[in-house]
Amino acid sequence: MRGVWFDRALSVRADLPRPVPAPGEALVRVSLAGICRTDLEILRGYMGFRGIPGHEFVGRVEGPAGSPLAGRRVVGEINAGCGACAECDRGDPRHCGSRTVLGIAGRNGAFADYLTLPERNLHVVPGAVPDIEAVFAEPVAAAFEIIEQRPDLPEPVLVIGDGKLGLLIAAVLARSGRRVVLGAKRPDRAGSILGPGIRVTPSGEIREAFPAVVEATGRPEGWEIATAHLSPRGILVLKSTYHGKPAIDLAAIVIAEWTVLGSRCGPFAPAIEALAARDLPVAKLIEAEYPLDRSVEAFEHAVRPGALKVLIRPGDAR
Amino acid sequence: MRGVWFDRALSVRADLPRPVPAPGEALVRVSLAGICRTDLEILRGYMGFRGIPGHEFVGRVEGPAGSPLAGRRVVGEINAGCGACAECDRGDPRHCGSRTVLGIAGRNGAFADYLTLPERNLHVVPGAVPDIEAVFAEPVAAAFEIIEQRPDLPEPVLVIGDGKLGLLIAAVLARSGRRVVLGAKRPDRAGSILGPGIRVTPSGEIREAFPAVVEATGRPEGWEIATAHLSPRGILVLKSTYHGKPAIDLAAIVIAEWTVLGSRCGPFAPAIEALAARDLPVAKLIEAEYPLDRSVEAFEHAVRPGALKVLIRPGDAR
Repeated sequence: MRGVWFDRALSVRADLPRPVPAPGEALVRVSLAGICRTDLEILRGYMGFRGIPGHEFVGRVEGPAGSPLAGRRVVGEINAGCGACAECDRGDPRHCGSRTVLGIAGRNGAFADYLTLPERNLHVVPGAVPDIEAVFAEPVAAAFEIIEQRPDLPEPVLVIGDGKLGLLIAAVLARSGRRVVLGAKRPDRAGSILGPGIRVTPSGEIREAFPAVVEATGRPEGWEIATAHLSPRGILVLKSTYHGKPAIDLAAIVIAEWTVLGSRCGPFAPAIEALAARDLPVAKLIEAEYPLDRSVEAFEHAVRPGALKVLIRPGDAR
Repeated sequence: MRGVWFDRALSVRADLPRPVPAPGEALVRVSLAGICRTDLEILRGYMGFRGIPGHEFVGRVEGPAGSPLAGRRVVGEINAGCGACAECDRGDPRHCGSRTVLGIAGRNGAFADYLTLPERNLHVVPGAVPDIEAVFAEPVAAAFEIIEQRPDLPEPVLVIGDGKLGLLIAAVLARSGRRVVLGAKRPDRAGSILGPGIRVTPSGEIREAFPAVVEATGRPEGWEIATAHLSPRGILVLKSTYHGKPAIDLAAIVIAEWTVLGSRCGPFAPAIEALAARDLPVAKLIEAEYPLDRSVEAFEHAVRPGALKVLIRPGDAR
């Protein structure tokens, strides 16, 4: 099959073996996949990944024969647990110590004609949700993770970062009824995507402190911006993952008694429900779409400063 | 009066002016004061402090005349709020943005014959608590802060660091009914101080992961040790304050969805209650006592690797 291959360099190959689903897994033909900032970090060495990247997708189950999901249009949770450890036992494969992660760790991903995932990872997409919106299920779930972790998250919430994830987080938090302020590099664009319910302001013009700040810049500088606007005893939700170790003033955490909460993958059920309600501005986040054969070009597009969502469409499998 | 003076170098001076209490403040004659690791960090540049250090003390109120506390033996909370801001309004002067902090920021401290503090910061010491135990009220309160912040702190708790604060934290958490493991550099000493209720183990021999870890080493290396033993979704309580900015893998926080909680000064009421119950091993933490005139020597003692509590006794004021 065709697929994007990363091994220190990125290429599109047509000679990749079609994956064979292990017991309990399904074979999914990928309809559409999205490039995430994490994919760009992988290209810079994050996780030391080598293989087919890509973890945001929508596709159709083609096998195995007899699977209850056969023929269904699905999105999928990206962490595949071992099924035998304490974390898996308590229903938390996202934190299984032996997990593989689609296109990120130990498992080939979605920038290809086919992928495999455990059937229990897959969620059927309601008919009302078109592929170009369903492909956002994974990042929308990541935004919902904040509320799942901290249903008591205080407001107003400051979201730092007007990239794809920052915009989704702002939209999801506002949808939860919270007052949200977005610190943006491109306030006009962010404002037109998010609409009037969310205050958008240039990050450099924020004057007040917030009891909750979400850092979603994807860049090490985000820490300084976020902590500069965090109240004493406030909660800082970290969403960015990047390659590297910034110098951090840990004493400042102690002195202000901040809570710093890491937040990664989230629950698909509320994400799909929100997508089905069609009240998240996901379609507005799409900047471009490339066929799979032009994936290298798609990545070149995605790394442009300020680029929004770039999609890769495998189209007909060969 | 006499006092320890720090201005890039440490000296004992006899020509310092006796402080004059501002309205609402009390004049306290210091009976006994403890050297904290934070004091040692101040000598290395932490907080840029210049003046009389020292924030752990017990003393007697000598003024002003007519104060309801006059003549009483007291310990004191070290943060003096402005009394007018939002944090002070909600009863949290510990986080007042304009606060002074005894012997740490903008306010002379306890290594002297006299200090001043707002009367509302002072707590009367029950008669059953001798000075050599009452002088631990501030660090015991800092240990109680963990429980005040997170009454739901899961167990077992791993405490990293067998210095003065780490030992107090282990004792206070065990007293709260939690199972506690202490990661120690000097396990024999720690075991004999803490008694049989707490498992003490060399930090390098800890094999399991914990849902809660308290980092109280006072050293940048503490972060690595603590996170190496923290379960996914676990909580890491940071107690160490030191000068400098270590390189931190923030992505690890995101991936494991850890909660990192800064924890500083704590509530005096439960600390004094615990001291009155006489079931914390505070007296066993005392390694040496020096008269005020020999404070430079006391500091030289306190910086020795592994030193426990070194006390400074002003004795008769001149």
